[in-house]
Amino acid sequence: MPAERLVVIGGVAAGMSAASRARRLNPRMEIVVLEKGDYVSYGTCGLTYLVSGVVRRPEDLIVYTPEFFRRERDVDVRTGHEVVEIVPGKKEVEVRAADSTYALKYDKLVLAAGGAPATSIPGVERPCVFTCNDLRGALALRDFLLARRPRRGVVIGGGYIGLEAAEALRAHDVDVTVLERSDTLLEGLEPEIGFWVNERLARHGIRAILNAAVNCVEPGLDESVQVVYGPRQELTAEVVVLTTGVAPRVELAARAGVELGSTGAIRTDDRQQTNLPSVYAAGDCAETTHLVTGGPVYVPLGTTANKQGRVAGENAAGGNARFPGVVGTLVTKVFGLEVAKTGLSQEAARAAGFSAEAVTIEARSRARYLGGQPLRATLVVDRESGRLLGGQLAGEEGAARRIDVLATALAARMTLSDFVHLDLGYAPPFGPVYDPLLTAAWEALKKIGRRR
Amino acid sequence: MPAERLVVIGGVAAGMSAASRARRLNPRMEIVVLEKGDYVSYGTCGLTYLVSGVVRRPEDLIVYTPEFFRRERDVDVRTGHEVVEIVPGKKEVEVRAADSTYALKYDKLVLAAGGAPATSIPGVERPCVFTCNDLRGALALRDFLLARRPRRGVVIGGGYIGLEAAEALRAHDVDVTVLERSDTLLEGLEPEIGFWVNERLARHGIRAILNAAVNCVEPGLDESVQVVYGPRQELTAEVVVLTTGVAPRVELAARAGVELGSTGAIRTDDRQQTNLPSVYAAGDCAETTHLVTGGPVYVPLGTTANKQGRVAGENAAGGNARFPGVVGTLVTKVFGLEVAKTGLSQEAARAAGFSAEAVTIEARSRARYLGGQPLRATLVVDRESGRLLGGQLAGEEGAARRIDVLATALAARMTLSDFVHLDLGYAPPFGPVYDPLLTAAWEALKKIGRRR
Repeated sequence: MPAERLVVIGGVAAGMSAASRARRLNPRMEIVVLEKGDYVSYGTCGLTYLVSGVVRRPEDLIVYTPEFFRRERDVDVRTGHEVVEIVPGKKEVEVRAADSTYALKYDKLVLAAGGAPATSIPGVERPCVFTCNDLRGALALRDFLLARRPRRGVVIGGGYIGLEAAEALRAHDVDVTVLERSDTLLEGLEPEIGFWVNERLARHGIRAILNAAVNCVEPGLDESVQVVYGPRQELTAEVVVLTTGVAPRVELAARAGVELGSTGAIRTDDRQQTNLPSVYAAGDCAETTHLVTGGPVYVPLGTTANKQGRVAGENAAGGNARFPGVVGTLVTKVFGLEVAKTGLSQEAARAAGFSAEAVTIEARSRARYLGGQPLRATLVVDRESGRLLGGQLAGEEGAARRIDVLATALAARMTLSDFVHLDLGYAPPFGPVYDPLLTAAWEALKKIGRRR
Repeated sequence: MPAERLVVIGGVAAGMSAASRARRLNPRMEIVVLEKGDYVSYGTCGLTYLVSGVVRRPEDLIVYTPEFFRRERDVDVRTGHEVVEIVPGKKEVEVRAADSTYALKYDKLVLAAGGAPATSIPGVERPCVFTCNDLRGALALRDFLLARRPRRGVVIGGGYIGLEAAEALRAHDVDVTVLERSDTLLEGLEPEIGFWVNERLARHGIRAILNAAVNCVEPGLDESVQVVYGPRQELTAEVVVLTTGVAPRVELAARAGVELGSTGAIRTDDRQQTNLPSVYAAGDCAETTHLVTGGPVYVPLGTTANKQGRVAGENAAGGNARFPGVVGTLVTKVFGLEVAKTGLSQEAARAAGFSAEAVTIEARSRARYLGGQPLRATLVVDRESGRLLGGQLAGEEGAARRIDVLATALAARMTLSDFVHLDLGYAPPFGPVYDPLLTAAWEALKKIGRRR
């Protein structure tokens, strides 16, 4: 009997994790990864650092090469091979490569096609408009910045990639404006945290305009464009970066009968299995469960993609792993300011039906006599149950890693009265004697009337 | 009817927390704090920084003055007032001040007398032998170092205060040897973590000798002493720092009929109440519950003292707060190396009856292309249940704050399979795509055979 064949569609984060995991569990399985791009297994979250010049060579972002996977893990990685059709009835995929098309049978299939820049803005096909979602896009943007030295730039979208892209443009001396369609940067930042982010951007000469939905990008004088937003405002720019988020790549899957969820991404169970037998999905093409709301959510992030990929790969190889879901943790750096959030914002928590309250405190990252820096922490809690629902942090230092304590507490469904007595580490170089998170929890207990 | 009177014995960490908390809950209560020393409410954990000179003025360690408590919180703080007897039958304490003795009635009593240096080594009363447990001791050591410029120093005890003291002596150009009676520094450090600590000490010219129990301190030539240890070895020193741990100050309480626990510290329930009615205990004079073993433990730390003090103060003021216990979290810095631990070491876990396994991984503090530094993480897990029992971290950066994730997971009694999918924050400046803790958890899952 021939070995089972696992076919993986997509070789960036989830796909390579799935292939590696399957190989570890099943040394005999034949594993083929079909990646339509030129690279596999690279740090997508480092792309803006490539644009800014902090990372000099694209090779530095590449974790493993196709050769590594072939040699060390016996995984047949085929870059430049695009799947154009999935035929579940025949258990095969149709593949188009540079100089051939072919059909490939599968016993197990992992869908890990990722996401694509999401936008419906007319005019973004112009040559000075870039995305920063993959290595090819980031390299094109970097080369453009170096070759053309644009003076004025517009970043469309104020999420974390937008702010990182703005900082990268600034490193090339571009005068930058960020246009964000909603009323907050970084999707749901609480006002006190958002204030610090705005302040930091302004200090570095970046304008962030909120409630600024972009209508279109029109040709301007010479090689510039006009970015038209709001009722009838416009900005002139020689370079535009489009960071309006990611949409799951699902056309192929949907056409083959794979069920999508309410988020528009592929629905799976907690084993990452789709509605079709032997077909799994992982990464930016799939939705997952939000552990605070219990509902489905689409949060395309490399770290989640890797975890889901491992689970999909393990199950495809005959194992029985489960991925419980996410709490929506995000960390980023805005010109040195650490910004972190997890769980639900107060607004999101209320929208989800919680009687949510938010409390913000300002503390220090460590003992004052050892140069502690200001740190802000917001906790979002449920007034009825005392349950923690989310939190945000910002500060010069000590914000990013502290969010993980909240992420852990959210996964454990802790209440404030559990949380307030946590035995967190204390030493003067690392924090004040009451950790800012515990101080925030005390204040929140006071606010909700010390229910336990 | 006159207001109830709360008397607090001891005004450093637990005592002032108790007084402050009681005041907040009960504006009418009369609150008297009796502190035999000269200072209240200071950062005991910063004392070694005062010795090294990083902190220049003792005032910088003082969080609040007695005047602050009198004026802002209406707490009658009496420094230089020592309680010499507790008479529960009459609900009063006998107090000795500089020029008077008096009896003071209490309705509620909080015992927060702290701890004292624990040692039975003959000869430690010599003038060049110092402790570093209180402001007075730290100042005396600093002044001695500045005035006498000793060349050779011995630190007796290799716990975190010992290593901090060694570093402080080094800052005064003293040639330092640390003598530790057990076979590990920092009480139960796993070998791979301990190796890094030893290496770091050696790089800075500090010898750490393990299994080196000190027998006595004898007079030497001129003003030096001979520190005699082991079978028959000795070291000459002009300065000795004694950091052999802290023993709870319990004589007064024991004499009054307050029950002690198996650790030798005062036993309380989770409301911090002793066996005597209306008498509470908190801080370094009391034991607490270890949340991993479920048994009593004595872990004198400022951060725990503050939390217990709050609970004792709240209950003394008629509230109903509970302190669940600790997981034994400790963080420190050894010449720039962050070292952190929480929960049980493998050895301690086996001694407590768990079928404990330990796994150590080496990872990076953040993305390699952004200058990530090596980081080691050890997890201790129960083979039977998959439950996390403890963990340790060391590294140039990113070790100290990461321990809090483990501390939170221990409090929530997480298993490895809960832990491995935690949604920890990821961005290149803050960590690798798989957080070192998650990588360690995966390795531990492999080792125990992926039980879930």
